[in-house]
Amino acid sequence: MPEPLTIAAAAEFIRTGALSPGDLLEQCLQRLYRYEEQVRAWVYLDRDGARDQAARLTAELKAGQYRGPLHGVPIGVKDIIDVFDMPTGCGSKRWANSYARRDADCVARLRRAGAIVMGKTVTTTFASFDPPITGNPWNLSHTPGGSSSGSAVAVACGMCLGALASQTGGSITRPASYCGVYSLKPTHGRVSVDGVLPLAPSLDHVGVMANCVRDLALLLQPLARTDSDAVPAPYHYHGELKQESYKRLKQLAALPDFPPTAGPEMAKAFDAFRDRTRSANWVWTELPLPPAFADVPPFHSTVMAVEAAAYHTERLRRHSDDYPPKVRSLIEHGFNTPAPHYANVMTHYRELREEIDWAFVDTWKTFITPATAGPAPTAETTGDPAFNSPWSYVGLPTVSLPFGWSADGLPLAVQLIGERWREDDLLAVASMLEADTGFARRPVPL
Amino acid sequence: MPEPLTIAAAAEFIRTGALSPGDLLEQCLQRLYRYEEQVRAWVYLDRDGARDQAARLTAELKAGQYRGPLHGVPIGVKDIIDVFDMPTGCGSKRWANSYARRDADCVARLRRAGAIVMGKTVTTTFASFDPPITGNPWNLSHTPGGSSSGSAVAVACGMCLGALASQTGGSITRPASYCGVYSLKPTHGRVSVDGVLPLAPSLDHVGVMANCVRDLALLLQPLARTDSDAVPAPYHYHGELKQESYKRLKQLAALPDFPPTAGPEMAKAFDAFRDRTRSANWVWTELPLPPAFADVPPFHSTVMAVEAAAYHTERLRRHSDDYPPKVRSLIEHGFNTPAPHYANVMTHYRELREEIDWAFVDTWKTFITPATAGPAPTAETTGDPAFNSPWSYVGLPTVSLPFGWSADGLPLAVQLIGERWREDDLLAVASMLEADTGFARRPVPL
Repeated sequence: MPEPLTIAAAAEFIRTGALSPGDLLEQCLQRLYRYEEQVRAWVYLDRDGARDQAARLTAELKAGQYRGPLHGVPIGVKDIIDVFDMPTGCGSKRWANSYARRDADCVARLRRAGAIVMGKTVTTTFASFDPPITGNPWNLSHTPGGSSSGSAVAVACGMCLGALASQTGGSITRPASYCGVYSLKPTHGRVSVDGVLPLAPSLDHVGVMANCVRDLALLLQPLARTDSDAVPAPYHYHGELKQESYKRLKQLAALPDFPPTAGPEMAKAFDAFRDRTRSANWVWTELPLPPAFADVPPFHSTVMAVEAAAYHTERLRRHSDDYPPKVRSLIEHGFNTPAPHYANVMTHYRELREEIDWAFVDTWKTFITPATAGPAPTAETTGDPAFNSPWSYVGLPTVSLPFGWSADGLPLAVQLIGERWREDDLLAVASMLEADTGFARRPVPL
Repeated sequence: MPEPLTIAAAAEFIRTGALSPGDLLEQCLQRLYRYEEQVRAWVYLDRDGARDQAARLTAELKAGQYRGPLHGVPIGVKDIIDVFDMPTGCGSKRWANSYARRDADCVARLRRAGAIVMGKTVTTTFASFDPPITGNPWNLSHTPGGSSSGSAVAVACGMCLGALASQTGGSITRPASYCGVYSLKPTHGRVSVDGVLPLAPSLDHVGVMANCVRDLALLLQPLARTDSDAVPAPYHYHGELKQESYKRLKQLAALPDFPPTAGPEMAKAFDAFRDRTRSANWVWTELPLPPAFADVPPFHSTVMAVEAAAYHTERLRRHSDDYPPKVRSLIEHGFNTPAPHYANVMTHYRELREEIDWAFVDTWKTFITPATAGPAPTAETTGDPAFNSPWSYVGLPTVSLPFGWSADGLPLAVQLIGERWREDDLLAVASMLEADTGFARRPVPL
């Protein structure tokens, strides 16, 4: 079985005719059939539909039409995101056969760019914290993370070359990091959530997972909203950076005040990673966060719980059997939150979003933190989102970058945080860091 | 079993406390249980949810909150329109358990106005022409009309006091007329189609059915869009008209050039109706339509077929078993239509919409025609939409008004057509006509 290709590599083969969309799809399907029984990444597979799409995209190529680097690239879609005439199960028993009548905006955009939708990837129920059926391919008794569990695993196993995911707390960064794949959570509002089950609209982000930074950039290109009312700055990925920009960009800001504590294994690995980057001429600085940042963890929980309750409370009352314990307690917590507290939190949320943007004004910088407290824990939980939720709250774009392995062979990752609306700069920095530090990919041990 | 109330009457009882929302709902449920086995108007009934809503609305009344005339009014919703956590089956086997994740805009608006959603009413498959399981309550071997079959029957049987319906050809006017209920198809664009299965967006309208003209006006009030970009004139129903307006308004324009031919029974009844109105001081004039109107019937078919095919073609190929013969041939017709023909038709469509508006500029008038060629035919078809489709094409608002009975005891109706965005005037005229001509309601013979 061939090693999974990156999108960037596959695109080159497809563009030059060295590989057809159909053959690329069959490679993905082979890996899917090889691993799926063990990892359970997919809730719905549309093999015939994917083959039809591949045939159509092959015919286009023969007719001289090339849509760009996603032409013929098989992707997975998290099962809270609508794909026309596939069910959007949302991890719910009752909604398991709820066929979507149209594509979500993000799906329609990837399709127009030539991507092939293979099917729907497992989500935790309603994108919350209840452990899914999915296993971590690096150790099946450990969690793949959540809520975008299936998307991370499908990409890690090469069942697809990229995947749509979503994050309200740490639902993109955490599973990507636990599974050793790359992820991008764009700026809040950069990608439309039209056609996506809400969890907490003030925090909900659609993002992507793939096997290298460049692939993240290629996936974001068609997804990024360009309507100037919604997004002040367009997104353009320029592929290669001009040499003279490098010095300015090779600067990372650690966050001494960032509250979560990494476990000993991550702390040690993160220190070693810092030393490695320094010897590749990366400059590390330290940046104090605004004091108001200290309130973020509990306030994030409040927003998530209250907005989840706004959507789910009535349904939970009527169909409590459709709610596993963690999402149920989230909703109940939200329902019992006094409204004035939520109102105060939302004031803090708006003010902090403005305040934190000032950190980027004087000198250009990228924040760096561990992506998680440590490697994926065992499967009773989906892991701790504490390193990620604050960035969902303030809405800054983040990239997670695998950089090493735990003693037990589980992936470890760093998290880079960039300036609002500047995914292009963030991805450029991530790409240079990737090139300088060289994550050694391994085949999944299954 | 008490006679079904109009919304206007029920609202007065509820406002004054003479009737509770719960008791009104139970009256509707009684009639539903009495007739449903014979007529099959509903595809999904949410009895417990409706009772919960009634209890909540009763509690609001006790707390002094009165939402207005729809407070506690039970309604039915055509099954191509999303209602949160009920399936939107669209008459499709494959979509029968497709639960909606949110209310359609029109449903959300009626809920905010206090309406109680009892459930989903039968639609023909994908709102096209294949006969539904639903029977006409005036004669079960005859069609109730389509595609809003269940909405018309549910209102006719008093299972709910009003219903949401939709029309692309004659899918509101025709079933309402065949079933002896009142209907309003508003101006194209007046009511949002967000959350509604498209058939042909250039022709798709959401509208309402009820048991008197005033009820139509009350239902439209919360539904009408007020965002000034989308609709140039707001809708306000003033309830009572000032005496001095009457003379100007009691003027009806027959359309000698309007192509469809009424059957002998309708022709005779329509003549008698004209005489009846004249003796009530209604002035009849004749109005020639723009010559371009002659092309409307085939062009309407083209738009409907092409736009239906744009949505359904790929799905039809993959799930042909989900498409009964008439909708299938509609889609195939659309698929085989040369695009330049459709482009020419759309030019005609835009120009005629502008041109026909000039007919209203000089003198205020309401067009009048039979609503259908005759009473409901037997159940092999859903009847002929030829009297209605042109008004879907030009997008003018229409009201259907039952006025009599066929020899076999089936209802007959006239269709009134008003000026664009002037549903208020149209409903005022319809209301006066209703008062002057007095349709004698009968209990359904079941």
